[in-house]
Amino acid sequence: MVSHIETVLEGRDGRVVKVGFDHPFVMIGERINPTNRKVLSAQLEAGDMTLVRRDAHRQLEAGAQVLDVNVGFAGADEPVVMPMAVQAIMEEVNAPLSIDSPSAKAVEAGLKMFKEMGGKKALINSATAERERMEKYLPLAAEYGAAIIGLAHDERGINYDVEARVGAAASLIEHAKAEYGIPKEDILIDPLTLTAGANTVAAWVALEVQRRVWEELGVNTTTGASNVAFGLPDRPTINTAYLPLMISRGLTSALTNPLEDHIRKILLASNVLMGRDPNAKKWIVAFREEQKAKAAAAKSA
Amino acid sequence: MVSHIETVLEGRDGRVVKVGFDHPFVMIGERINPTNRKVLSAQLEAGDMTLVRRDAHRQLEAGAQVLDVNVGFAGADEPVVMPMAVQAIMEEVNAPLSIDSPSAKAVEAGLKMFKEMGGKKALINSATAERERMEKYLPLAAEYGAAIIGLAHDERGINYDVEARVGAAASLIEHAKAEYGIPKEDILIDPLTLTAGANTVAAWVALEVQRRVWEELGVNTTTGASNVAFGLPDRPTINTAYLPLMISRGLTSALTNPLEDHIRKILLASNVLMGRDPNAKKWIVAFREEQKAKAAAAKSA
Repeated sequence: MVSHIETVLEGRDGRVVKVGFDHPFVMIGERINPTNRKVLSAQLEAGDMTLVRRDAHRQLEAGAQVLDVNVGFAGADEPVVMPMAVQAIMEEVNAPLSIDSPSAKAVEAGLKMFKEMGGKKALINSATAERERMEKYLPLAAEYGAAIIGLAHDERGINYDVEARVGAAASLIEHAKAEYGIPKEDILIDPLTLTAGANTVAAWVALEVQRRVWEELGVNTTTGASNVAFGLPDRPTINTAYLPLMISRGLTSALTNPLEDHIRKILLASNVLMGRDPNAKKWIVAFREEQKAKAAAAKSA
Repeated sequence: MVSHIETVLEGRDGRVVKVGFDHPFVMIGERINPTNRKVLSAQLEAGDMTLVRRDAHRQLEAGAQVLDVNVGFAGADEPVVMPMAVQAIMEEVNAPLSIDSPSAKAVEAGLKMFKEMGGKKALINSATAERERMEKYLPLAAEYGAAIIGLAHDERGINYDVEARVGAAASLIEHAKAEYGIPKEDILIDPLTLTAGANTVAAWVALEVQRRVWEELGVNTTTGASNVAFGLPDRPTINTAYLPLMISRGLTSALTNPLEDHIRKILLASNVLMGRDPNAKKWIVAFREEQKAKAAAAKSA
């Protein structure tokens, strides 16, 4: 089975984003996240949303379709800061958001603000949630009509067992439907990208889980694609190879950084090759814009 | 079914190359080919093998494991020139060769010289052969114990019909076994890479054929990977995306140019991610060598 189901997210003012095998790959911009960003951390702590607003615009201009919102700086009161960030972003742009926090309260506060600001269908990203803690997130997805990212791991935690991960994903999908009425269209399974440098088969296991989730469960998927290259030299090339390897096996979205040129380009090229860019029109337009920008930069230099 | 069969090629002096899903991806160096290379054409015409010898060394140093030999300049007497080129290459290096010509006589002369020079198992690349002309190549494969590239097209020629291509590949494999006793291990199916710029689904069809040949027929595969980007802007990025997309679906070798840095690197990175480079050792060594070379170049500048 090759899945063609659609996961539909919606921001405000009718801004719809469709995640699915027949659509261009969806970049979920990961930049609004204070990890390793001192200035952003300090601003968030002070309630200053200047960088958050700027990052929202810049990521959408670079091709992100959804924006992940993570306010987890050290000592953050996330249930307070999350809705502030969501409000600021939605004052600026109309894209759907991915509300990303290990705190269910922060997620709920974010979802509430998203609705208040006119948002229709957000994404819940509980990327660090243990399986049992999903019990707090699934009711929120049902209540707020949000889609949700579900990790392919069970109560035994993260492991390199393909069978166990696919089984955990399948049972999560069933459980979400049976207990909370969440349809499989609203679940993005994350096959779990771990660092390739830590274990020879780490990336391979994620690729196999991705293939089987696509072929056997038929759902859409997402993953934190940047993780794979930690600790290896020439990280950009590793990331550049990983995305098409995953896309070829049905990955339909990823948390990634659209401001990195090699990421943006390899995704556009993959769209051409997967038949998702009719007549390579977007590819050609992007190339021309890049040439123009280079010419302008050369002139002003 | 996920194939793990091996296609074993062998040059002289025990130089064995294994093509298969559990091995690093095999680059078949495509540079010994006079198309668009005026100096090489002129040298071949004059019987001068200087560039041929140099290209053999350079490609192997850049990571090619097999060398394609194509002597098809305009007006070439290929059955005469092919064995001259094969002899020159085998005086220099011990790698297995891919004998590449639309002339069955040239292929036979090349295979004969390969054996005379101590080669054990070559590859026959009849990349432009019509299906009916395969009847001339298959007996040569059987007689000389060579492996052979089989195109996924039938008597109706090249088309965008996935089913037809997979069917043609399956019948070719059966036919080779039934009529000539050639085992499926000795056939590399080419899913047919056509220019993505010519048709929105051109590359996608090749990707689907590749997936099905891998999963359903369980054979090794190869393709002329550079073709995909003809006519599109930023060809390197298109080529960089195409290789991992195909590798993820079981492509185990490709005719490509190892002297292009982005090709060499994306293949090394793909090996890491596919679990074919234990502890990323080759990746790390290649990175260090590149850093050394850059430092040396900077010093001498």
